Amino acid sequence: MTDLSRRLVAETLGTALLVATVVGSGVMADRLSDDVAVSLLGNTIPTGAILFVLITLLGPISGAHFNPAVTLIFLVRREIGGRDAGFYVGAQILGGVVGTMVAHLMFDLPLLAASATVRTGGAQWFAELVATAGLVITILGGLRHRPEQIPTLVGLYITAAYWFTASTSFANPAVAIARSLTDTFSGIRPNDLPGFILAELIGALLALALCRWLFAERPVHPEKPMGETV
Amino acid sequence: MTDLSRRLVAETLGTALLVATVVGSGVMADRLSDDVAVSLLGNTIPTGAILFVLITLLGPISGAHFNPAVTLIFLVRREIGGRDAGFYVGAQILGGVVGTMVAHLMFDLPLLAASATVRTGGAQWFAELVATAGLVITILGGLRHRPEQIPTLVGLYITAAYWFTASTSFANPAVAIARSLTDTFSGIRPNDLPGFILAELIGALLALALCRWLFAERPVHPEKPMGETV
Amino acid sequence: MTDLSRRLVAETLGTALLVATVVGSGVMADRLSDDVAVSLLGNTIPTGAILFVLITLLGPISGAHFNPAVTLIFLVRREIGGRDAGFYVGAQILGGVVGTMVAHLMFDLPLLAASATVRTGGAQWFAELVATAGLVITILGGLRHRPEQIPTLVGLYITAAYWFTASTSFANPAVAIARSLTDTFSGIRPNDLPGFILAELIGALLALALCRWLFAERPVHPEKPMGETV
Amino acid sequence: MTDLSRRLVAETLGTALLVATVVGSGVMADRLSDDVAVSLLGNTIPTGAILFVLITLLGPISGAHFNPAVTLIFLVRREIGGRDAGFYVGAQILGGVVGTMVAHLMFDLPLLAASATVRTGGAQWFAELVATAGLVITILGGLRHRPEQIPTLVGLYITAAYWFTASTSFANPAVAIARSLTDTFSGIRPNDLPGFILAELIGALLALALCRWLFAERPVHPEKPMGETV
Repeated sequence: MTDLSRRLVAETLGTALLVATVVGSGVMADRLSDDVAVSLLGNTIPTGAILFVLITLLGPISGAHFNPAVTLIFLVRREIGGRDAGFYVGAQILGGVVGTMVAHLMFDLPLLAASATVRTGGAQWFAELVATAGLVITILGGLRHRPEQIPTLVGLYITAAYWFTASTSFANPAVAIARSLTDTFSGIRPNDLPGFILAELIGALLALALCRWLFAERPVHPEKPMGETV
Repeated sequence: MTDLSRRLVAETLGTALLVATVVGSGVMADRLSDDVAVSLLGNTIPTGAILFVLITLLGPISGAHFNPAVTLIFLVRREIGGRDAGFYVGAQILGGVVGTMVAHLMFDLPLLAASATVRTGGAQWFAELVATAGLVITILGGLRHRPEQIPTLVGLYITAAYWFTASTSFANPAVAIARSLTDTFSGIRPNDLPGFILAELIGALLALALCRWLFAERPVHPEKPMGETV
Repeated sequence: MTDLSRRLVAETLGTALLVATVVGSGVMADRLSDDVAVSLLGNTIPTGAILFVLITLLGPISGAHFNPAVTLIFLVRREIGGRDAGFYVGAQILGGVVGTMVAHLMFDLPLLAASATVRTGGAQWFAELVATAGLVITILGGLRHRPEQIPTLVGLYITAAYWFTASTSFANPAVAIARSLTDTFSGIRPNDLPGFILAELIGALLALALCRWLFAERPVHPEKPMGETV
Repeated sequence: MTDLSRRLVAETLGTALLVATVVGSGVMADRLSDDVAVSLLGNTIPTGAILFVLITLLGPISGAHFNPAVTLIFLVRREIGGRDAGFYVGAQILGGVVGTMVAHLMFDLPLLAASATVRTGGAQWFAELVATAGLVITILGGLRHRPEQIPTLVGLYITAAYWFTASTSFANPAVAIARSLTDTFSGIRPNDLPGFILAELIGALLALALCRWLFAERPVHPEKPMGETV
């Protein structure tokens, strides 16, 4: 029980710091620049950096999910039980909301505020599906081949996905909920949450199905793997 | 046969995600900024990041070529057979086209569109030759001295080559074909493809010849190698 | 005694180069751009990079504190004695001031100049508290789980904290003092020092209390840690 | 003798690619942006990236000096003989000039052109002295504590030094000579070469003296090194 409480604190703390970084760096970057691409760089680089830090520090405690879509995948793979998964998702959503509040306090903004940023429509939903599928492929492929590089892999994947997906890659239902509560650079209108969350969960499950075949347990030995020698 | 199909899916998936990143981040960056160097940063950073991710995840399955020029080099080195090399190139071209379509769908653009961006002339061809030669030196030197760092080496080499070559370093015939089908930031006019592809293949083969001598199998022991101690 | 002198020189040299980088890159970036977010990128990237370098080089000599708040934490943990801790803090403050002078000499500015940049108020103090708490969590969690990655962790944490905290994350009393002596991009008004330093020390101690429980000595084994496999 | 020729080719090739990156990315970045800080970012990131690549690939062959100031240090430390050191410096200067020519060919510029960029005066010379001293400390400290991380350390040190030194950190006489032959973003007026080269050599030798004491052979064991655990 002590262990579970420590794990839940790790999930809450990690998601809170992740969201505080996404929201806070978005406010900072947006205030300082008129060039939206510069602002997005100022939002991307801190997010990728903090993901490496948080997964390295908290992964050994809770597994560093910070993301209900990731917890769902581990639940389907029977690597976490149903009750614990429920607690994890609760801790992540709580952490996300706390993260938004911490960012708002640091930047002297109202504690919470509904976002007015419209993010909806088929292209955005498809982008979220792709973004989350890519994240799950990154995690499951990393666990299969290079588990010690998961922090780097996730940090760099999200760095790329901020730019190559039209939605800037939320890829995380708990973070999406937290971002609906900030009316700043990184916000999303609460009405648009269901479409994003549904697309994320579908993307995660599709990726899981692909990974089951692609990263099958039986080792594969190509003639000369470019990124592997043993 | 199962193994070959898995390898071909890995080549298709990897090239698709690589091209989706190049094209998608180009669209995003170009839409958000009037400063072309800022847009190129927003195109470069995601490309370098996703290369690290894709080579790490898929290298152990297919070798992570994602590039007909690379497959050609491994064919000449007899590390892949002729039939498999043909399948690899087909998978890469298919993947590239799928990647362009995925990016277009995410950004609400027509599925495919011929590019109007002129990229031709001796300076551009020389730049592509240098870009691809550098890529092959990076891969073969990495395989010789630090195979576990190939994902980092290729990601950082391409990050540099986006800027130091006048062509922004396509260095990949399959990616070039895929980029001829997008009329956005990263496009290339279909008419200009043959010059680019020829320059890339020549650059790759010249680099192979150099590497055969420079990275000869017999170990070399300088007094005190700066980047090596064993 | 020889050992202590070497350690103190390492603390002085490290803090000097850290401050020279913060102040110098701030001057360079501010001179070259009208876009403050671009200047902050030009201030952030060098700071994160030099932190990796300095901690890697000097950590094995002095522990690479470069920061009185960090020395305070190790004092409370009884990993450094009271006398040595006092010397460390002196060396850090001295190094910081030297770093400002070196930066000013390189950029042809008066040797020292009081800053006029106002950084005060509850939001700024809360930001400094969060920034320093995050730094201490990063260091203590890193020491617990991945000590060989401390240079990367600290470099990337500060890269993120430049942007997600409203104060740009000083998180270091010695650096704050040194930055009060430069009237440039990275300065802080001397009058505002006490609020910053107090917030930093409180943040550090709060984080220490949390870490004692979160990173308790007894190993924790979740089902499948995402960022850990052994 | 074969070994020496291979080492000299490695020094020539490495310095050529380094200079082609510095000069080429400078031209690209300067053409694409009106914001000089953005251009400097587009010059910095490729340079840091290619340094990691080149030192990793060529370090095991030649030691990856690419820099007469570095060769001088290894000569004084008797880790390279006088005759070989002379060949190394010749190969580096040759490589640098070739690198400028390659960059010019790629960007459709005259093969060589004297730079008109004034870089002179006490502040600039002091900046070059600091830049080169820092580079030598980075290399010698890295060799002492973390030799396998030299490519990362040098890449990140130069990334920082581009910004924190007023001279953008040439820190390399061969590169300085090559940069006097390009009338573009990264150039230096030939008349200003002697001041830069002298400052670089003095900085290198001062750093060598410091490192002899700071990184003495006898191991040092502080209570708890932050960046080291063994």
